[in-house]
Amino acid sequence: MTSPSVSYSITVRLEMPAQPAAVSTITTTVERAGGVVTAVDVSASGVDRLQVDVTCATGGEDDAKRIVDALGDIAGVSIGRVSDRTFLAHLGGKIEVQPKMQIRHRDDLSLIYTPGVGRVSQQLAAHPEDAVRLTIKRNTVAVVSDGSAVLGLGNIGPTAALPVMEGKAALFKRFSGIDAFPICLDTQDVDEIVRTVKIIAPVFAGINLEDISAPRCFEIEARLREELDIPVFHDDQHGTAIVAVAALRNALKVVGKRIEDVRIVQSGAGAAGSAILRLMLAAGAKHVVVSDIDGVIRPGRPGLAPSLEWMAAATEGDEYPGTLRDAIAGADVFIGVSAPNLLTEADVAAMAPDSIVFAMANPLPEIDPAIATRHAAVVATGRSDFANQINNVLAFPGVFRGLLDGRSTRITDEMLLAAATALADVVTPEELNATYIVPSVFHPQLHGAVASAVQTAAEADSESRSSVTRS
Amino acid sequence: MTSPSVSYSITVRLEMPAQPAAVSTITTTVERAGGVVTAVDVSASGVDRLQVDVTCATGGEDDAKRIVDALGDIAGVSIGRVSDRTFLAHLGGKIEVQPKMQIRHRDDLSLIYTPGVGRVSQQLAAHPEDAVRLTIKRNTVAVVSDGSAVLGLGNIGPTAALPVMEGKAALFKRFSGIDAFPICLDTQDVDEIVRTVKIIAPVFAGINLEDISAPRCFEIEARLREELDIPVFHDDQHGTAIVAVAALRNALKVVGKRIEDVRIVQSGAGAAGSAILRLMLAAGAKHVVVSDIDGVIRPGRPGLAPSLEWMAAATEGDEYPGTLRDAIAGADVFIGVSAPNLLTEADVAAMAPDSIVFAMANPLPEIDPAIATRHAAVVATGRSDFANQINNVLAFPGVFRGLLDGRSTRITDEMLLAAATALADVVTPEELNATYIVPSVFHPQLHGAVASAVQTAAEADSESRSSVTRS
Repeated sequence: MTSPSVSYSITVRLEMPAQPAAVSTITTTVERAGGVVTAVDVSASGVDRLQVDVTCATGGEDDAKRIVDALGDIAGVSIGRVSDRTFLAHLGGKIEVQPKMQIRHRDDLSLIYTPGVGRVSQQLAAHPEDAVRLTIKRNTVAVVSDGSAVLGLGNIGPTAALPVMEGKAALFKRFSGIDAFPICLDTQDVDEIVRTVKIIAPVFAGINLEDISAPRCFEIEARLREELDIPVFHDDQHGTAIVAVAALRNALKVVGKRIEDVRIVQSGAGAAGSAILRLMLAAGAKHVVVSDIDGVIRPGRPGLAPSLEWMAAATEGDEYPGTLRDAIAGADVFIGVSAPNLLTEADVAAMAPDSIVFAMANPLPEIDPAIATRHAAVVATGRSDFANQINNVLAFPGVFRGLLDGRSTRITDEMLLAAATALADVVTPEELNATYIVPSVFHPQLHGAVASAVQTAAEADSESRSSVTRS
Repeated sequence: MTSPSVSYSITVRLEMPAQPAAVSTITTTVERAGGVVTAVDVSASGVDRLQVDVTCATGGEDDAKRIVDALGDIAGVSIGRVSDRTFLAHLGGKIEVQPKMQIRHRDDLSLIYTPGVGRVSQQLAAHPEDAVRLTIKRNTVAVVSDGSAVLGLGNIGPTAALPVMEGKAALFKRFSGIDAFPICLDTQDVDEIVRTVKIIAPVFAGINLEDISAPRCFEIEARLREELDIPVFHDDQHGTAIVAVAALRNALKVVGKRIEDVRIVQSGAGAAGSAILRLMLAAGAKHVVVSDIDGVIRPGRPGLAPSLEWMAAATEGDEYPGTLRDAIAGADVFIGVSAPNLLTEADVAAMAPDSIVFAMANPLPEIDPAIATRHAAVVATGRSDFANQINNVLAFPGVFRGLLDGRSTRITDEMLLAAATALADVVTPEELNATYIVPSVFHPQLHGAVASAVQTAAEADSESRSSVTRS
């Protein structure tokens, strides 16, 4: 039995005799079978029969089946339809497109459609820059994926990626009022992806790339940034980096160390890893070692991929020619964006006193956080069922709100760093402790604070660039 | 002075002495200057001053200026900001993307985003056909334009086209509950457009092409229909054709003639013209002559474009080797989708008794409808300020609702014809007369009736195709 989760909730419709103990029998049965009852609803009643809808969290498919079987074994109970709450939540999709005004009569039509709209179009033909005022471009972001690296599921393609992109769009609106729309691409060719995003760009004020596999994502992002005049953000890289660096900032405060002084060992050099490294360096980190599946990354490592050369040059890999295990002994910080169960308890025990472990591999971390906490002072993961979840939802809504409000044409490391600092600082000194280094996604000040910091950085960037142009 | 229109309304903020006759002075002044006051709002008041917001319909930019000047000439009045109601209606764009569920706490996040969404994605990776159940694909249409032929404005490009596509998306939701999203393409290359639409197709259950110039639109539509497994509809062609054929069906009822018998002269062989001709022929028309800028289209006309050859073969142009003017004498029906003021009063007078004139050129019809009605029994235009407006909004929402509900993978002439018939039949025999041959866009039964007819036709199509596959 796995511990029950709401993301695997089922609703079981059953009929049973109308007896005083009916509901308590059900509850007891579900709990004995390993589920947690979250709702019991008598949905219909007869003279001597009840129709009851029982919703319960389960540990997964096998557990759900065991619970349904146990309910069926109760004397007099017959099982009806079993529905899955997660699937119910996704039925028909998770977002919709709504007009912002009422359309009640012909006058309304004349204003928002022909002939009125023609005047707005004429204005934009003469002054395309007015699109940020007179169209949805002002507040609209494309969530673009080719489905090549979706969550922990791998290359499942554009259709299977759509539920994730819809969810992302829903979160954009919920947390920062941005209108985001999923663009799922039926191609995995880099040139075609770049060309397609450029062609559809007129409607959007920003591009959020999502779940595109490395190293293709690097080239796609770099080329789009070069060719578009709107900001391009790859959430798996920059969103993760912002949250990780924010969490690191607060974790270091908890243990009383400075980022300049600590020795950091990072496992993983993919999309997230490269972005985290870059942002840690921008934040002042001086002593970093990165390893990947082939060992510690260092200049001259045989067969070193060109995309890793800058990492070799920017880190201290040549001081640790061996394995991750050698490097981690005595390190202050471990940053994992790699694979499950890479670290042993002994590895964590061998780190410096007051060590920090971010084990962010998904869905299974580099080490069970319960084990890591035996030796590390601060532990974070990507999981929602453990303290200190490194969750991109903490960053991307505010980042884009700031970019859009600052009318930014690009994204710089300064903006990412401003986001990380603002995100970290939402946790007040009074609140900060080893199990609360990042705020809740629902923290009322969070997204506004990130937005405001990014907007300020974006406006400074735009000001400095126009000074350059003028001088 | 042009007659005032709400699509050119202005709101004038002014300050004036607080006098009993204040409001009536304003109203009189506006009306003398050629405007129509639609709202007067005292937006602030002081001891002896009022701040008043006056909204009035004007005949255009010059008229608006004259009205503002006249208001400024009132003793004691000072003019503040003048805003344009049409532009105000478009501020910030006309549609937004909304989550369909509340996102209140971590449990909600776990259901609609990670980890719950992962299970839905896995399901779709195994069963992509479930996307119509578990994603927005079920109800989502792309409104695609390259901005090459927008309204009467011509090739104004993708950004200037966006307000029109947003308006269309708003109407889709308003009239048939469909989630439509504007895709404005920064290319006018046919291959690139086809490729881009194919690449972004996974999210959509249908493609509505819009405002793409002829003859490019024919090839784009044909290739997309060939290569996609979702319906592709070019509204400027098929939407116009459905409404025109519906209007013709009812106009013929008014004059008591049959489509098989009447002689029809059509002016215009572009996107709309070719689609109207095709659908009229499918509806049973037998005697049609089509002319374009080079005269009557007939087999062997020097330099006849390949895209017009089928028209020459399907019509009776060889019986009228001269001009449009020669052909129209004695004709029962004139269908114009061409250019302003092509017809004279004498042309209409020379038509057969009880003639029908559809002068649909935009924004100026082939003949002033007030003149045409002197001789024709039924007159229709594309204008909203005259009876019998041939307006695509009558068709496209219901057509797509029917296609989506019927899970159609394509669009056939039978479906278009079913839409036209259902649209015409919304006008009951008791209601039908020469000034009411099409229902209002706001008619409560209209879009449902069209949807239902299209869905039935789509289901019959799908049934007949699967029979073919089975046999």
